[in-house]
Amino acid sequence: MFGREPHGRREFLEASAGVLICTLAGQQVFSGEEADLAKLTEGVEVPPKVAAAKGAQPDKRIAGEPGAGNTVEYWIQAEPTAWSIVPTGRDEMMNRKIRTRYKFTAWTYRPYSRDFGSPLAAGSIPGPLLEVEEGQTLVVNFRNRTSAPVTMHPHGIHYAEEMDGAYKGAFTDPGGFVQPGQEFQYRWFAQEGTAGAWTYHDHGPMDPIPLYKGLFGPLIIRPSGATPPDQDFFLFFHDLQPVATGLAKAYSSVNGRAYAGNTPTLRASVGDEVAFHVYGMDNNFHTFHLHGHRWEDPGTGQIIDNKTFGPGDSYNFTFTEDNPGRWFYHCHVFSHLHMGMNGWYIVT
Amino acid sequence: MFGREPHGRREFLEASAGVLICTLAGQQVFSGEEADLAKLTEGVEVPPKVAAAKGAQPDKRIAGEPGAGNTVEYWIQAEPTAWSIVPTGRDEMMNRKIRTRYKFTAWTYRPYSRDFGSPLAAGSIPGPLLEVEEGQTLVVNFRNRTSAPVTMHPHGIHYAEEMDGAYKGAFTDPGGFVQPGQEFQYRWFAQEGTAGAWTYHDHGPMDPIPLYKGLFGPLIIRPSGATPPDQDFFLFFHDLQPVATGLAKAYSSVNGRAYAGNTPTLRASVGDEVAFHVYGMDNNFHTFHLHGHRWEDPGTGQIIDNKTFGPGDSYNFTFTEDNPGRWFYHCHVFSHLHMGMNGWYIVT
Amino acid sequence: MFGREPHGRREFLEASAGVLICTLAGQQVFSGEEADLAKLTEGVEVPPKVAAAKGAQPDKRIAGEPGAGNTVEYWIQAEPTAWSIVPTGRDEMMNRKIRTRYKFTAWTYRPYSRDFGSPLAAGSIPGPLLEVEEGQTLVVNFRNRTSAPVTMHPHGIHYAEEMDGAYKGAFTDPGGFVQPGQEFQYRWFAQEGTAGAWTYHDHGPMDPIPLYKGLFGPLIIRPSGATPPDQDFFLFFHDLQPVATGLAKAYSSVNGRAYAGNTPTLRASVGDEVAFHVYGMDNNFHTFHLHGHRWEDPGTGQIIDNKTFGPGDSYNFTFTEDNPGRWFYHCHVFSHLHMGMNGWYIVT
Repeated sequence: MFGREPHGRREFLEASAGVLICTLAGQQVFSGEEADLAKLTEGVEVPPKVAAAKGAQPDKRIAGEPGAGNTVEYWIQAEPTAWSIVPTGRDEMMNRKIRTRYKFTAWTYRPYSRDFGSPLAAGSIPGPLLEVEEGQTLVVNFRNRTSAPVTMHPHGIHYAEEMDGAYKGAFTDPGGFVQPGQEFQYRWFAQEGTAGAWTYHDHGPMDPIPLYKGLFGPLIIRPSGATPPDQDFFLFFHDLQPVATGLAKAYSSVNGRAYAGNTPTLRASVGDEVAFHVYGMDNNFHTFHLHGHRWEDPGTGQIIDNKTFGPGDSYNFTFTEDNPGRWFYHCHVFSHLHMGMNGWYIVT
Repeated sequence: MFGREPHGRREFLEASAGVLICTLAGQQVFSGEEADLAKLTEGVEVPPKVAAAKGAQPDKRIAGEPGAGNTVEYWIQAEPTAWSIVPTGRDEMMNRKIRTRYKFTAWTYRPYSRDFGSPLAAGSIPGPLLEVEEGQTLVVNFRNRTSAPVTMHPHGIHYAEEMDGAYKGAFTDPGGFVQPGQEFQYRWFAQEGTAGAWTYHDHGPMDPIPLYKGLFGPLIIRPSGATPPDQDFFLFFHDLQPVATGLAKAYSSVNGRAYAGNTPTLRASVGDEVAFHVYGMDNNFHTFHLHGHRWEDPGTGQIIDNKTFGPGDSYNFTFTEDNPGRWFYHCHVFSHLHMGMNGWYIVT
Repeated sequence: MFGREPHGRREFLEASAGVLICTLAGQQVFSGEEADLAKLTEGVEVPPKVAAAKGAQPDKRIAGEPGAGNTVEYWIQAEPTAWSIVPTGRDEMMNRKIRTRYKFTAWTYRPYSRDFGSPLAAGSIPGPLLEVEEGQTLVVNFRNRTSAPVTMHPHGIHYAEEMDGAYKGAFTDPGGFVQPGQEFQYRWFAQEGTAGAWTYHDHGPMDPIPLYKGLFGPLIIRPSGATPPDQDFFLFFHDLQPVATGLAKAYSSVNGRAYAGNTPTLRASVGDEVAFHVYGMDNNFHTFHLHGHRWEDPGTGQIIDNKTFGPGDSYNFTFTEDNPGRWFYHCHVFSHLHMGMNGWYIVT
C-alpha cells in the first residue's frame, strides 16, 4: 500500500537515538545519547584570532558608555555541579515516587566574590541573576572550569562585536571561545531603552550541549532608580535530555527541577506586586499558565491567563496579588506538564 | 561513524508506542496506545480532603461577589458519547473517501435542564458554551457519569482555591476529584475585567486523557449588557490520538471532527459582524489562517491573516464580512492541515 | 512493565519513513521519502469546474477596484531549477565541510518579461518579490512548467473566490488547479488597509510538496507613495525534507540555503534604516534572533531581540542600524540553528 522500501539498520539506530541536535567537531550528536564534551573538544581547532590573542583581554568600549564609576561587576565561574532534578524524589502533582534516575553532573554559572575569592552560592540552574540599571555598564569576569570551551552570550543588552560571546568558526573572537582554565572579561552596556528581563547563556563551539547541561541564567535591566516588585520570579522552562544528562529519561523542567515540590515553590501575599519572568530555553515551544489568576498582558493590554513563548523569548508580566490558595503554574503543553513542567504558587 | 551502541527491543517498543504523554497511577501512558482509564483509576488513592468531605459541598464565595439574584446556573454531565470524527466519510478538500476507522467512544460534557431533568442536547466535542456577563456568578452543577474521576477547570474567570477543579495529589480539594457517580457544584465569579472567551476542561487525576477524549468546552464572559455579534464561532484545534480514541490513526481535528465537510461549516452574510474564538487544546502549536480575509489583530492593531497560538490559549478577533465565496479556514502547519484541521467558511 | 503489545513491521516502516505529511491522490506521503509528483498527479481527477472552463480565463474584478491604469503586472513561471542548498560546501558557523549531499531539483517561481518573453532572473527559493502599493491591482500571469498541477495562493491581499489559487476538491476553480503547460491570470487587489509583507505559495492538489520544493515567495504591499527602507530583507525559515528533495538528510534553511555563508549574508551600514520580513514556511515553529541588536516590536511596542512565529506568519520590524560588526541571525530553536538555520548580518 505504501510503496516504500524497507529501511535498514542505520535508520533504525538513528530513530532510536532521538533527534539530531547538532554536529560538533564533525560528529553528529543526538538527543538520546550523552555527548562526551571533553572528547569532542579535542577535535575543535582553536580559532586564529583566539590563538593570536594569547589570552590578552580586548579593551572594547561602546560609544556613549559612561565612566568606570557607573559599572556593576560580577565574577562568574562555569563549573560542574552535582545536581538532582527531583530532590524530594516525589512528584507532588501526581502524588507518586519517581523511580527513574534523576541525578547528573550539571554545568553551572556560579557566582564568586571579587577576584574569584570565594563562592557566593552553590552552582545552580539557572545561574545567578545579573542586575543592572539602564545607563550602567555590566562587567562580567568569567572563568571556565569545565572540560570544554564555553562562553557567556547575553540577550538584550548592548555590546560590541568582541563581547558577543558567540563561537563563529574562523571568525571567532576570544570571548566566543574561552578555553578550560581560561578567563575572559565581558563588558556589556545597559543602554537607555534596554530595560527588561533578558537571558545569558553559553554560545561556544559545543553549543547547545553545555547550555542543555545548565549554562544559562537571567539578566535584568531595571529603569534607573526603579524599585523591584515585592516578588520577582525568574523561571526557565527547558528539558533535560539524555544528551546532556546521561540519564535514560528526558525531564521537562523549570529551573533544572522537575515536578511540583521540586521546581520552585513560589510564595506571595495578598496585596503584593508580583512579577513573573518566564524564559524558553530548549528546543520546544511552551505556554505559561497560572491557576486562579489572569493578568494584563503588557504587550497587548489584553487580559490572559496563558501565553505562548519560544526558545530565547522572555515573557514578563506583573499583577497585584488578590487570590489566596495553593495554585499550579505550568506549561499547558500536556506532555510537558506531565513530564515535570509544573510547580506550586502559594498565596497567603 | 556515529559511535553509538545498538538499541534493544525496549527502545524499539517505546519508539513504536509514540510519545510519553503522562504517568497515571504510576503507569506510563504513550500517545500510540489506548489508555484504560477505568483500570488506571483503580490505582489512584482518594485524596484525604476528598475522603474527609464525604461528598459535602463546600460553600465558598469570593469577596465582592453579588447575591443570588445575579447568578447563571448550568447542569453539566460528563458522559460517554458515541462519536464519529468523519461523519460524512469523506475529505472534501482532497475529494476522497476516508478508509481508516474514525468512530470511538468520546467523553463529553453534556448540558441538562435544571436538576439534571433531561438532556438539552446530545453530548458533543466541545461541550456546551457557558455564557455569563461580567459581574455575574456562574454556578455549574457537575455530575460525573464516566468511569474515572474527572473535573471542570475553568480559565480566565475568578474562583477560590476550592473551585479550581484541579487534581493536586495529596492537596486535592473535592472539586479536583469528582468520582464516577458523584456530583460537585462549581461556583465561579465573572469579575469585572475578565470579559473574553475562555475555556473549561478536565483537570482531574487522569488528565490529559479524559480531555483528549473530548472533555473541554468554551466559556464566554461578555461585558455587561453586550450584544453578541451576528456570528460567534468557537473552534477548538486539537488532535484525536490513539491513546484517547483506540483508533490506529491520529486525526488533526476541529471541534472533534476532521476534514472539510465534517469540521464546522461556518456560514455568514456580507455585512455581518463575525467573531472567531479559536483555541489550542492538544500538545501542539497551531496557527489560524482564513482564506480571502484579513483582520485587525485586537492585541496589536496589526492587519494579519494568520496567527500562532498554543495549548490553553484562546485567540479572538472580529471583522465585518465583505467577501462572498467558499473559503477555507485551516491550521497553516501543513501536516495538521492535511490530517484534517481545515473547514469551510461560506459567505453569501 | 508497559503492558503493551509488540509492534510489527508496518509500524516500524512507518516510524522510519518519518512523519505523515499528507495524503495525495489517495496515497500517504511521509516526510522521509521522496514523493513522485508526476506519478501522483496521474491519480488526481480534473475538477468539474476546471474541466468545464476549458482554459478560458475568468474576468473577475473586486468591487471598488480602480481601472487598468493602476495595475502592476508580473509574468511568473513555475519550473524546475537545479538547486544547491550549500553552494559553498561549508558551514561557516562550525567551520566544517558538509559531507552529505545537498543538491536537488527545486521547483521555483521564476520571473519573466512581458508575455513570457525572456527570464528576468534565475529560478530561486524564494520566488521573486511581488511589489504593489495600496490602491493598486496586482495581476500575475502564471504559467506552469512543472509536472504537477500547481497554483499561486496569496496572503493578505484582497481577492475574489475565483482568484484564491487553492485546490478545493470538487469545488475547485480553474485558478486552484493550473495543469502542466497551462496558464492562469491571477488578479488581486491591494485594498487600503492591507499594507504589509505577505507571502504567496502553491496551494494546489499536491500541496504541500511543491511548496516544500520551493514554490513560495514574498509579496509586499507598501503604503501609497512610501519609500522603501535602506535595507529590506525577506527571509523564509523552512526545512528542506527528503520528501521534497530526495536527499537522505533534512536541512533547516533560510531562503533555500543552509548554514552561514550559504544562507543570505545581509549587509548594512551604520545609520541605515533596516527592515526585516521573516516568514515561517514549513511544519515548524521558529524564532528570529539577531545578535548585537534589539528592536521595538511593532505590534506591542516592547523592546525584544527574539520573536516566535509560525507557519504562514510574517514577522516585520525595522530599526536604525547602530552597531558595526559581524553578527549572527538565527532561529533560537537549537536543533534548527544547528541544522543550518543561521546566517551572517554584516554591518560596516
